[in-house]
Amino acid sequence: MLNQYAPLDRLFQALSDPSRRAMVERLSRGPASVSELARPFAMSLPAVVQHLQVLEASGLVRSEKIGRVRTCHIEPTALRLAEQWITERRMDWERRLDRLGDYLAEHPDEPDQGGRS
Amino acid sequence: MLNQYAPLDRLFQALSDPSRRAMVERLSRGPASVSELARPFAMSLPAVVQHLQVLEASGLVRSEKIGRVRTCHIEPTALRLAEQWITERRMDWERRLDRLGDYLAEHPDEPDQGGRS
Repeated sequence: MLNQYAPLDRLFQALSDPSRRAMVERLSRGPASVSELARPFAMSLPAVVQHLQVLEASGLVRSEKIGRVRTCHIEPTALRLAEQWITERRMDWERRLDRLGDYLAEHPDEPDQGGRS
Repeated sequence: MLNQYAPLDRLFQALSDPSRRAMVERLSRGPASVSELARPFAMSLPAVVQHLQVLEASGLVRSEKIGRVRTCHIEPTALRLAEQWITERRMDWERRLDRLGDYLAEHPDEPDQGGRS
Protein backbone atom coordinates (compact mmCIF):
# COMPACT_ATOMS: atom_id res chain seq x y z
CA MET A 1 0.00 0.00 0.00
CA LEU A 2 2.79 2.40 0.83
CA ASN A 3 4.35 1.89 -2.60
CA GLN A 4 2.08 4.49 -4.17
CA TYR A 5 3.79 7.04 -1.94
CA ALA A 6 7.32 6.11 -2.93
CA PRO A 7 7.66 8.79 -5.66
CA LEU A 8 6.77 11.53 -3.17
CA ASP A 9 9.09 9.98 -0.56
CA ARG A 10 11.99 10.19 -2.99
CA LEU A 11 11.02 13.63 -4.27
CA PHE A 12 10.86 15.28 -0.86
CA GLN A 13 13.93 13.38 0.31
CA ALA A 14 15.86 14.67 -2.71
CA LEU A 15 14.71 18.23 -1.99
CA SER A 16 15.74 18.08 1.69
CA ASP A 17 19.40 18.79 0.89
CA PRO A 18 20.54 22.38 0.16
CA SER A 19 23.12 21.34 -2.47
CA ARG A 20 20.54 19.30 -4.35
CA ARG A 21 18.05 22.18 -4.18
CA ALA A 22 20.75 24.51 -5.56
CA MET A 23 21.27 22.07 -8.45
CA VAL A 24 17.52 22.01 -9.14
CA GLU A 25 17.49 25.84 -9.02
CA ARG A 26 20.32 25.97 -11.54
CA LEU A 27 18.71 23.41 -13.86
CA SER A 28 15.33 25.18 -13.71
CA ARG A 29 17.04 28.00 -15.61
CA GLY A 30 18.42 25.68 -18.28
CA PRO A 31 20.42 22.49 -18.91
CA ALA A 32 23.99 22.23 -17.63
CA SER A 33 26.89 19.82 -17.88
CA VAL A 34 27.99 18.04 -14.71
CA SER A 35 31.10 20.21 -14.44
CA GLU A 36 29.06 23.42 -14.88
CA LEU A 37 26.74 22.20 -12.14
CA ALA A 38 29.68 21.37 -9.87
CA ARG A 39 31.39 24.75 -10.28
CA PRO A 40 29.62 26.76 -7.51
CA PHE A 41 30.08 24.00 -4.93
CA ALA A 42 33.03 23.46 -2.63
CA MET A 43 32.70 19.72 -3.07
CA SER A 44 34.42 16.98 -5.02
CA LEU A 45 33.09 15.89 -8.41
CA PRO A 46 32.20 12.41 -7.04
CA ALA A 47 30.10 14.10 -4.32
CA VAL A 48 28.30 16.14 -6.98
CA VAL A 49 27.70 12.99 -9.02
CA GLN A 50 26.26 11.28 -5.95
CA HIS A 51 23.79 14.15 -5.42
CA LEU A 52 22.88 13.97 -9.10
CA GLN A 53 22.17 10.26 -8.74
CA VAL A 54 19.72 11.00 -5.91
CA LEU A 55 18.07 13.68 -8.08
CA GLU A 56 17.83 11.29 -11.04
CA ALA A 57 16.40 8.50 -8.88
CA SER A 58 13.74 10.92 -7.62
CA GLY A 59 12.79 11.81 -11.19
CA LEU A 60 13.63 15.51 -10.72
CA VAL A 61 16.59 15.43 -13.10
CA ARG A 62 17.54 13.42 -16.13
CA SER A 63 20.87 13.41 -17.88
CA GLU A 64 22.27 12.25 -21.19
CA LYS A 65 25.82 11.70 -22.27
CA ILE A 66 26.83 12.95 -25.69
CA GLY A 67 30.46 12.23 -26.48
CA ARG A 68 32.38 12.99 -23.30
CA VAL A 69 29.90 15.46 -21.86
CA ARG A 70 26.97 14.51 -19.62
CA THR A 71 24.24 17.15 -19.75
CA CYS A 72 21.58 17.44 -17.03
CA HIS A 73 18.01 18.67 -17.48
CA ILE A 74 15.19 19.40 -15.08
CA GLU A 75 12.21 17.05 -15.28
CA PRO A 76 9.19 19.29 -14.68
CA THR A 77 6.70 16.44 -14.20
CA ALA A 78 8.32 15.44 -10.91
CA LEU A 79 8.44 19.03 -9.71
CA ARG A 80 4.73 19.35 -10.49
CA LEU A 81 3.93 16.19 -8.52
CA ALA A 82 5.53 17.65 -5.38
CA GLU A 83 3.91 21.04 -5.97
CA GLN A 84 0.52 19.43 -6.45
CA TRP A 85 0.68 17.52 -3.18
CA ILE A 86 1.50 20.68 -1.20
CA THR A 87 -1.06 22.82 -3.07
CA GLU A 88 -3.81 20.28 -2.32
CA ARG A 89 -3.02 20.48 1.40
CA ARG A 90 -3.09 24.27 1.31
CA MET A 91 -6.45 24.18 -0.49
CA ASP A 92 -7.89 21.71 2.05
CA TRP A 93 -6.83 24.10 4.75
CA GLU A 94 -8.24 27.19 3.00
CA ARG A 95 -11.56 25.41 2.33
CA ARG A 96 -11.75 24.62 6.01
CA LEU A 97 -11.14 28.30 6.89
CA ASP A 98 -13.87 29.32 4.41
CA ARG A 99 -16.36 26.91 5.98
CA LEU A 100 -15.45 28.23 9.42
CA GLY A 101 -15.96 31.80 8.17
CA ASP A 102 -19.36 30.87 6.68
CA TYR A 103 -20.37 29.22 9.92
CA LEU A 104 -19.41 32.25 11.98
CA ALA A 105 -21.27 34.57 9.57
CA GLU A 106 -24.41 32.42 9.83
CA HIS A 107 -24.20 32.14 13.63
CA PRO A 108 -23.34 35.66 14.74
CA ASP A 109 -24.76 35.16 18.22
CA GLU A 110 -22.62 32.20 19.24
CA PRO A 111 -20.96 33.17 22.51
CA ASP A 112 -17.78 31.31 21.73
CA GLN A 113 -15.49 31.68 18.66
CA GLY A 114 -16.06 35.43 18.73
CA GLY A 115 -18.95 37.58 17.94
CA ARG A 116 -21.12 39.18 15.37
CA SER A 117 -20.86 38.97 11.58
CA MET B 1 25.66 30.39 4.72
CA LEU B 2 23.79 27.10 4.55
CA ASN B 3 21.82 28.01 7.68
CA GLN B 4 19.29 29.99 5.67
CA TYR B 5 18.33 26.72 4.00
CA ALA B 6 17.73 24.82 7.21
CA PRO B 7 13.96 25.47 7.35
CA LEU B 8 13.53 23.99 3.84
CA ASP B 9 15.81 21.08 4.77
CA ARG B 10 13.58 20.22 7.71
CA LEU B 11 10.36 20.84 5.80
CA PHE B 12 11.18 18.56 2.89
CA GLN B 13 12.72 15.99 5.22
CA ALA B 14 9.49 15.96 7.27
CA LEU B 15 7.43 15.51 4.09
CA SER B 16 9.55 12.60 2.82
CA ASP B 17 7.76 10.08 5.04
CA PRO B 18 4.32 8.72 4.02
CA SER B 19 3.00 8.54 7.60
CA ARG B 20 3.97 12.14 8.26
CA ARG B 21 2.38 13.23 4.98
CA ALA B 22 -0.80 11.38 5.97
CA MET B 23 -0.79 13.29 9.28
CA VAL B 24 -0.38 16.59 7.43
CA GLU B 25 -3.25 15.57 5.09
CA ARG B 26 -5.45 14.84 8.08
CA LEU B 27 -4.55 18.09 9.87
CA SER B 28 -5.13 20.16 6.70
CA ARG B 29 -8.78 19.25 7.10
CA GLY B 30 -8.90 20.34 10.75
CA PRO B 31 -7.24 19.98 14.16
CA ALA B 32 -7.02 16.53 15.78
CA SER B 33 -5.92 15.06 19.07
CA VAL B 34 -2.85 12.81 19.07
CA SER B 35 -5.00 9.70 19.53
CA GLU B 36 -7.32 10.71 16.65
CA LEU B 37 -4.25 11.21 14.51
CA ALA B 38 -2.85 7.83 15.53
CA ARG B 39 -6.07 5.91 14.80
CA PRO B 40 -5.58 5.13 11.06
CA PHE B 41 -1.99 3.96 11.57
CA ALA B 42 -0.80 0.48 12.42
CA MET B 43 1.88 1.94 14.65
CA SER B 44 2.47 2.44 18.35
CA LEU B 45 1.52 5.71 20.01
CA PRO B 46 5.22 6.48 20.77
CA ALA B 47 6.00 6.07 17.05
CA VAL B 48 3.20 8.50 16.21
CA VAL B 49 4.51 10.96 18.80
CA GLN B 50 7.98 10.70 17.27
CA HIS B 51 6.61 11.56 13.80
CA LEU B 52 4.72 14.47 15.35
CA GLN B 53 7.93 15.74 16.91
CA VAL B 54 9.58 15.78 13.46
CA LEU B 55 6.55 17.65 12.07
CA GLU B 56 6.64 20.17 14.93
CA ALA B 57 10.40 20.71 14.54
CA SER B 58 9.85 21.41 10.83
CA GLY B 59 7.20 24.02 11.67
CA LEU B 60 4.48 22.16 9.74
CA VAL B 61 2.48 21.29 12.85
CA ARG B 62 1.99 22.85 16.25
CA SER B 63 0.25 21.31 19.22
CA GLU B 64 -1.15 22.47 22.51
CA LYS B 65 -2.11 20.50 25.56
CA ILE B 66 -5.36 21.42 27.29
CA GLY B 67 -6.03 19.26 30.32
CA ARG B 68 -5.08 15.74 29.32
CA VAL B 69 -5.59 16.18 25.59
CA ARG B 70 -2.91 17.37 23.18
CA THR B 71 -4.45 18.88 20.05
CA CYS B 72 -2.47 19.25 16.81
CA HIS B 73 -2.96 21.93 14.17
CA ILE B 74 -1.48 22.51 10.74
CA GLU B 75 0.82 25.53 10.45
CA PRO B 76 0.09 26.94 6.98
CA THR B 77 3.11 29.29 6.89
CA ALA B 78 5.52 26.36 6.69
CA LEU B 79 3.45 24.65 4.01
CA ARG B 80 3.52 27.89 2.00
CA LEU B 81 7.30 28.15 2.30
CA ALA B 82 7.74 24.70 0.72
CA GLU B 83 5.11 25.44 -1.94
CA GLN B 84 6.77 28.75 -2.78
CA TRP B 85 10.18 27.18 -3.32
CA ILE B 86 8.76 24.59 -5.75
CA THR B 87 6.53 27.11 -7.54
CA GLU B 88 9.50 29.43 -8.12
CA ARG B 89 11.44 26.59 -9.76
CA ARG B 90 8.49 25.73 -11.98
CA MET B 91 8.16 29.39 -12.99
CA ASP B 92 11.89 29.63 -13.78
CA TRP B 93 11.47 26.63 -16.01
CA GLU B 94 8.33 27.97 -17.72
CA ARG B 95 9.97 31.35 -18.32
CA ARG B 96 12.86 29.57 -19.98
CA LEU B 97 10.44 27.64 -22.22
CA ASP B 98 8.69 30.90 -23.13
CA ARG B 99 11.97 32.54 -24.10
CA LEU B 100 12.89 29.50 -26.17
CA GLY B 101 9.45 29.63 -27.85
CA ASP B 102 9.87 33.35 -28.60
CA TYR B 103 13.31 32.73 -30.03
CA LEU B 104 12.08 29.93 -32.29
CA ALA B 105 9.11 32.04 -33.44
CA GLU B 106 11.44 34.90 -34.34
CA HIS B 107 13.91 32.62 -36.11
CA PRO B 108 11.74 30.19 -38.07
CA ASP B 109 14.48 29.34 -40.54
CA GLU B 110 17.13 28.24 -38.05
CA PRO B 111 17.93 24.59 -38.66
CA ASP B 112 19.02 24.08 -35.05
CA GLN B 113 18.53 26.19 -31.93
CA GLY B 114 21.91 27.83 -32.36
CA GLY B 115 22.99 30.79 -34.34
CA ARG B 116 22.07 34.35 -35.16
CA SER B 117 20.48 36.83 -32.82
